Amino acid sequence: MPGGTVLPSWREGDARAALLEFLDVADDIPPGQRLAVFDNDGTLWCEKPHYPQLDFFAWELHHAVSDRPDLRDVAEYHAVLNGDKAAMAELGIERVATALVALFEGREPEHFEARVRTFFAETRHPATGMQYDEMVYAPMLELLRALEAKGFTNCIVTGGGTEFVRAISRQVYGIEPERVVGTLITYMLTHPDGRPTLVRSDRTQGEINEGGAKVSNIQIALGRRPVLAAGNSPGDAEMLEHANSLDGPSLALLVNHDDAEREYAYQSVAGTFAASEPVEATATRLGWVQVSMRDDWTTVFPSP
Amino acid sequence: MPGGTVLPSWREGDARAALLEFLDVADDIPPGQRLAVFDNDGTLWCEKPHYPQLDFFAWELHHAVSDRPDLRDVAEYHAVLNGDKAAMAELGIERVATALVALFEGREPEHFEARVRTFFAETRHPATGMQYDEMVYAPMLELLRALEAKGFTNCIVTGGGTEFVRAISRQVYGIEPERVVGTLITYMLTHPDGRPTLVRSDRTQGEINEGGAKVSNIQIALGRRPVLAAGNSPGDAEMLEHANSLDGPSLALLVNHDDAEREYAYQSVAGTFAASEPVEATATRLGWVQVSMRDDWTTVFPSP
Repeated sequence: MPGGTVLPSWREGDARAALLEFLDVADDIPPGQRLAVFDNDGTLWCEKPHYPQLDFFAWELHHAVSDRPDLRDVAEYHAVLNGDKAAMAELGIERVATALVALFEGREPEHFEARVRTFFAETRHPATGMQYDEMVYAPMLELLRALEAKGFTNCIVTGGGTEFVRAISRQVYGIEPERVVGTLITYMLTHPDGRPTLVRSDRTQGEINEGGAKVSNIQIALGRRPVLAAGNSPGDAEMLEHANSLDGPSLALLVNHDDAEREYAYQSVAGTFAASEPVEATATRLGWVQVSMRDDWTTVFPSP
Repeated sequence: MPGGTVLPSWREGDARAALLEFLDVADDIPPGQRLAVFDNDGTLWCEKPHYPQLDFFAWELHHAVSDRPDLRDVAEYHAVLNGDKAAMAELGIERVATALVALFEGREPEHFEARVRTFFAETRHPATGMQYDEMVYAPMLELLRALEAKGFTNCIVTGGGTEFVRAISRQVYGIEPERVVGTLITYMLTHPDGRPTLVRSDRTQGEINEGGAKVSNIQIALGRRPVLAAGNSPGDAEMLEHANSLDGPSLALLVNHDDAEREYAYQSVAGTFAASEPVEATATRLGWVQVSMRDDWTTVFPSP
């Protein structure tokens, strides 16, 4: 085994041993099948107290209402501006998300991307004061690099917006935009000055990328079945089971948030996804590798 | 200029000079924007006398009717089995395509992929006797490699089926499956033996990937605008214009089929796409680089 040089932030234990064993047998996997998929929120970066994407849209909304105060009267916007979780829950996450997506209707993708990058540069996490995109898990970054060294293609499969994650995926994770699979919006091709100009619509395409949709969308976007999948919530269960149902070497990894000291301690429930059992129970039943943030990681966030 | 070692199958002339100039200025393009997109049929490989994908489905259909002779009575299948172009045209390409896609309903993606590979191994082009996947254009393969050497990500953006092209894209073009953007089918997640099993449906997802759809689908699948686009038909016009409407360096390349000796001579018309003018006229109007197969290429197909 490569020992100390690989996965340095992983403590000796079952999780580290399972990962090193998988990296060891990876040479037996045909190169074209070396595909690893990672959920994003709560798997690669911190998702508490809110999804970074929700805070991005709230930030954008605050900017928007300074020009257009009438937006305050829209129920969905009112709830987000006041951080009123009860009102958001009553309206439903999909309706709130749709209203927020509409803030960028008619704008070019490059505009959206620039706004996302400005958000990450200008705002700070409410508890740690760090940039949101610094709150990635160092042990998971080490896993990404170790897999790349073994010829793997790493992809992100997120319930969040595809374009939101793409705006920072290369810089934060070393993952190219086409290797981010998330919830999609649709585009319209317009010709405002005779030239083709692609702009965002206010509609998502297909369902939210959670649960079984993740499995379908991996095939649609990436064209093959992963041999490693990592997640942290019930919305990742189908993806992990799918990756782990191959005959050859495969690995399903569940990140458990049990570290109130260094991150957060909570039981994962997917935003829009009703699971029949806690995902930790699914993991135990199906023999997935479970990661305790508290016990398995020497470091949570990379040093600045 | 790198001279003789780059693009050896391209004769001295305007097209070669334009490509070398673009490769020269590529260093000025931010690495994250070095995206090049290529139509497939008629741009990277031969599309005559039929699209290889149509011949694949006809081949599959011939196998299917030996087990199920009743399939002969389906109008769409009857037309394909008899190569009856008039009947196919009367039924409409979309209706014929839908019927052919249904041949694989309920099958796993790995089954479809294996059938495509068997087709390429077992069948030969009716005029040349070559394998279909040997009838790729050597000068275009050289362009792919020259772009890679400059840090470009090469992608295929085809009106054909995404999964059909993905089955051979790595081996034939050195392009990973997630970098193939085509017409998509939808999948169903089933649980036949309690395990999640992904199978093909009989429905396509969204419209055929031609014309404006190519521009939207590039954004949806790849997340950024290409700076080089190559095509050969009216269905590629929007994609080429989109790539070429950047302020920085960009290149739009149109392959003209004027070589009846070594390939075919024909005016390109997209299967389902009604253009307002011949695509060569669009190219002249917008200043795209036009490639004459007869004059610009010393070789068409790679030597065995």
